[in-house]
Amino acid sequence: MPKNIIQHTITTLVENRPGVLARVSGLFARRGFNIESLAVSITNDPSISRMTIVVNGDGNVLEQITKQLNKLIDVIKVIDYTDQPTVERELAMIKVNAETKNRAEIMQIVDIFRAKIIDISEKTFTVEVTGSVAKIDAIEALLESHGIQEMVRTGKIVMMRGANG
Amino acid sequence: MPKNIIQHTITTLVENRPGVLARVSGLFARRGFNIESLAVSITNDPSISRMTIVVNGDGNVLEQITKQLNKLIDVIKVIDYTDQPTVERELAMIKVNAETKNRAEIMQIVDIFRAKIIDISEKTFTVEVTGSVAKIDAIEALLESHGIQEMVRTGKIVMMRGANG
Repeated sequence: MPKNIIQHTITTLVENRPGVLARVSGLFARRGFNIESLAVSITNDPSISRMTIVVNGDGNVLEQITKQLNKLIDVIKVIDYTDQPTVERELAMIKVNAETKNRAEIMQIVDIFRAKIIDISEKTFTVEVTGSVAKIDAIEALLESHGIQEMVRTGKIVMMRGANG
Repeated sequence: MPKNIIQHTITTLVENRPGVLARVSGLFARRGFNIESLAVSITNDPSISRMTIVVNGDGNVLEQITKQLNKLIDVIKVIDYTDQPTVERELAMIKVNAETKNRAEIMQIVDIFRAKIIDISEKTFTVEVTGSVAKIDAIEALLESHGIQEMVRTGKIVMMRGANG
């Protein structure tokens, strides 16, 4: 990546209303920022959604985007987790070819990564795995040699370590 | 919910480019559809992103949205998983108040839900839990009585059961 281009993880708390997601993602698009991953869901207050956004980009441009985010009426709070002490997790499901002769080897990989086989057919396993983005990349790379039919990942979610405030 | 309004789960495979997310979410916003949850991340082909979209809305309107999605140049495929045989999972992190006197009870809940304590401070536990949306709702409800400081959920991801094609 060119100089100044680093990966940022941002959380925005927003009102749970139609159109908010389009406005937030529009802000990034207009600056040419590609969103690497995004996870949006309700919080313990169902009127508030939490978006975890991972982007690669110039820190100065991102600061401008953050300022504009804060001006949007539906945005309650923006937190930049870049370089903060956080816990991070992502969830993935991977459907991998599992011929009888390869099953023992796949089950070993699943075991090592503390993953789980959650569905099985004559020729496939569907594997569920949770961990850091790097851990999911690693199990994906190992299963790739057996042939991945399909993969779905949630994008990472983050939270500050320790107690709040 | 009024008649015809049911929850739908849709997956779109899209080119991994700036602006795609804004265009897709704009389509839903213009029809007044609120996105309940959304998970976007790369697939095993890094040039392709997979979006899992959960919306509540009228099936006929959603059919129109699906047709328009299919016309977008960056959209490769749209799959409606509503009423299909799927495996579904969501991941959450919940930071809960954990005074010494409550810790044993919280650890019991964590155990029953096969959740994990992934961070700890003098006054809090951060719990990681994976499962169906209903399972995460259930552990949230139980932990709520101790006081939830913060919760982040990925939104659900889905995959068809069995082998593909």
